[in-house]
Amino acid sequence: MHKLITEFIGTFFLVMTIGCTVIGTAGTGVIPPLAIGAALMVMVFAGGHISGAHYNPAVTLGVLVRGRCSAPDALGYIIAQCSGAFLAALVVGFFKAGVPVTPVEIDTTKALVAEFLFTFALVYVVLNVATAKGTANNSFYGLAIGSTVMAGAFAVGGISGGAFNPAVALGITLMGLSSLANIWVFLVGNFAAGIVAGIVFRTLNPQDV
Amino acid sequence: MHKLITEFIGTFFLVMTIGCTVIGTAGTGVIPPLAIGAALMVMVFAGGHISGAHYNPAVTLGVLVRGRCSAPDALGYIIAQCSGAFLAALVVGFFKAGVPVTPVEIDTTKALVAEFLFTFALVYVVLNVATAKGTANNSFYGLAIGSTVMAGAFAVGGISGGAFNPAVALGITLMGLSSLANIWVFLVGNFAAGIVAGIVFRTLNPQDV
Amino acid sequence: MHKLITEFIGTFFLVMTIGCTVIGTAGTGVIPPLAIGAALMVMVFAGGHISGAHYNPAVTLGVLVRGRCSAPDALGYIIAQCSGAFLAALVVGFFKAGVPVTPVEIDTTKALVAEFLFTFALVYVVLNVATAKGTANNSFYGLAIGSTVMAGAFAVGGISGGAFNPAVALGITLMGLSSLANIWVFLVGNFAAGIVAGIVFRTLNPQDV
Amino acid sequence: MHKLITEFIGTFFLVMTIGCTVIGTAGTGVIPPLAIGAALMVMVFAGGHISGAHYNPAVTLGVLVRGRCSAPDALGYIIAQCSGAFLAALVVGFFKAGVPVTPVEIDTTKALVAEFLFTFALVYVVLNVATAKGTANNSFYGLAIGSTVMAGAFAVGGISGGAFNPAVALGITLMGLSSLANIWVFLVGNFAAGIVAGIVFRTLNPQDV
Repeated sequence: MHKLITEFIGTFFLVMTIGCTVIGTAGTGVIPPLAIGAALMVMVFAGGHISGAHYNPAVTLGVLVRGRCSAPDALGYIIAQCSGAFLAALVVGFFKAGVPVTPVEIDTTKALVAEFLFTFALVYVVLNVATAKGTANNSFYGLAIGSTVMAGAFAVGGISGGAFNPAVALGITLMGLSSLANIWVFLVGNFAAGIVAGIVFRTLNPQDV
Repeated sequence: MHKLITEFIGTFFLVMTIGCTVIGTAGTGVIPPLAIGAALMVMVFAGGHISGAHYNPAVTLGVLVRGRCSAPDALGYIIAQCSGAFLAALVVGFFKAGVPVTPVEIDTTKALVAEFLFTFALVYVVLNVATAKGTANNSFYGLAIGSTVMAGAFAVGGISGGAFNPAVALGITLMGLSSLANIWVFLVGNFAAGIVAGIVFRTLNPQDV
Repeated sequence: MHKLITEFIGTFFLVMTIGCTVIGTAGTGVIPPLAIGAALMVMVFAGGHISGAHYNPAVTLGVLVRGRCSAPDALGYIIAQCSGAFLAALVVGFFKAGVPVTPVEIDTTKALVAEFLFTFALVYVVLNVATAKGTANNSFYGLAIGSTVMAGAFAVGGISGGAFNPAVALGITLMGLSSLANIWVFLVGNFAAGIVAGIVFRTLNPQDV
Repeated sequence: MHKLITEFIGTFFLVMTIGCTVIGTAGTGVIPPLAIGAALMVMVFAGGHISGAHYNPAVTLGVLVRGRCSAPDALGYIIAQCSGAFLAALVVGFFKAGVPVTPVEIDTTKALVAEFLFTFALVYVVLNVATAKGTANNSFYGLAIGSTVMAGAFAVGGISGGAFNPAVALGITLMGLSSLANIWVFLVGNFAAGIVAGIVFRTLNPQDV
């Protein structure tokens, strides 16, 4: 239960930071990726020792494939993450009441590739910095994970919206930043990337499996 | 006494950086949160081994609730922090003499919620990265703590002013950046968040209590 | 083979981030160096324990001169790095199809000096933070390496384009960001710097050789 | 001799980054402090295990007062640092030939206070993160030191120019960014701060002396 509360809190602050920095601002520029990467980083540093600090169903799926999480635990994690994203969307709705929100327009194929590639990068980084023997006891895991999302948001935020995370996709859909018709792009791209990253990790770190 | 001087120095530089980067600039944009987060980070890294590097009465209250600080010590810390904020306001007044300052206008309810939420995040991060067994001897505590304030300032700085810290609230009130009539919003929101974060930490880290 | 895949993945994400953040934007400003430095940092943190995380033929040459890599291994690394850069150029071409790209105009002498100096800084930093006994088991190697590229891109990006990396030079040439006629500037400047940095490292760290 | 070469290289890249990011740009904004802080950070991480990575005569003076450096060694360090700054000014002159440079105009008293305060912060941070028993073997020293200069440049760069370092003061004077008539402001403010920070460190860390 401690783990689920930690996942809930971390995902809540991640998604709230996204809504607060994107809605009613230009939604572009240097601030949202910087703030979002920082929010993820601090929550990873704060919660890593309790829950592993996934805050992302695609990460949880990658950790499952990598063999560090059971299927029932993964389900609980994903429910906690989506609950955090749901509450964050409510809070953002309260903060930004009356501010017009326009869903991002995407080219489906490009968005799918962008979400796949940077979610792969994210899960690949998570598995290598937070679950590998070769990096045990490091002090950089949160910085590496948060900065991957920041780099991805700068690189392809304009192409896909830059979720790299199905719980974030739920949150931004609820906030009206992404249309419901496009949520499958995130779900397919992110979960597929989580699986592939899990397999790649197992291949590259055979001594860890 | 060494601890109190350390708290004084750290809070002084934090509040001075706030005043210098907000007054006479647009007061918005990427610079203030980046500079403020960095100032807090470096003072936490510099003073953590001496005083624990709170620089924030709400953090001190959270540490008290968590059980790592006595009530008399907490009082001394808070006095040192407020003294540092007071001197910083004087120095900023000297640097920015003649520059017009306008108090931020806030929606009280939204500001209260914003201050509560991100002060909770801040104290939750502090307790987990600087007082938990599970993260002992890490090298990221200052980065995590400073970056939480940076993320919060980006996310809700426009809603509440982004203090997350009663000593900062005192400082920005003295500088004229926030009106005296609103200081209760910070005091209530920040101290309540410190207490709740202390309780949540104890719940999530039962082996640490 | 694990090492080569790791070099391929890391260089791919580095070069893709460059293309995505430079093409179709002003190509200047704070975002590209921040994103590129972060992408390199996270890939170094993720892959360092597998391949050493060079992602840069000039770094590989420097490591060879320093004595931590054999010539055949170096060749494999460089092929993997260039392959990653090649694929990244294809993916960027897909994302940015139809966006006009103008090659950067350079003053050859200044560009050569700029590429030499900051590639020297980069390889000097890599050798000292990732291969020296005096910094063994640190948690900052990725931050130091990524931030060197970020600082260099800010400092001389307007002079040379800021590659500091022959694989990046290949990638930006394929993307049309740099003209083929100028690629020798990068190859000469970067490889020469890698050699000199290797020699300087051996001189300054005699106990490590 | 290894130490002096390291000090020379580090100060060279610090001062070159200053010149390259300030001259011919607005000279304000987010880029110079970010780039300068990063350049200092990476050189501290790269050279700390060899020379202690001062790159700043005021830091060397503070380390002397703190008792970790002899007077003859300090003199050698300062000469190496100033030599690095001198060469950096030449290289910047080559890169920026023909670009008009205007010396910053300062209010002497405010500049003196600003230089004193943030140089104190810098040396206080250096002594606590790089020479204190309580933070031994940490992985954040470079991040803390570089970020102090970044925060100071954001906070008071517009007041004093933001040198916090007599070697930097020499460099920016040679480049024409600061007038020769004002160099005493930096020398007095910076060296006084180094002495005071050394005394404060000894007071706060009695077990370390």
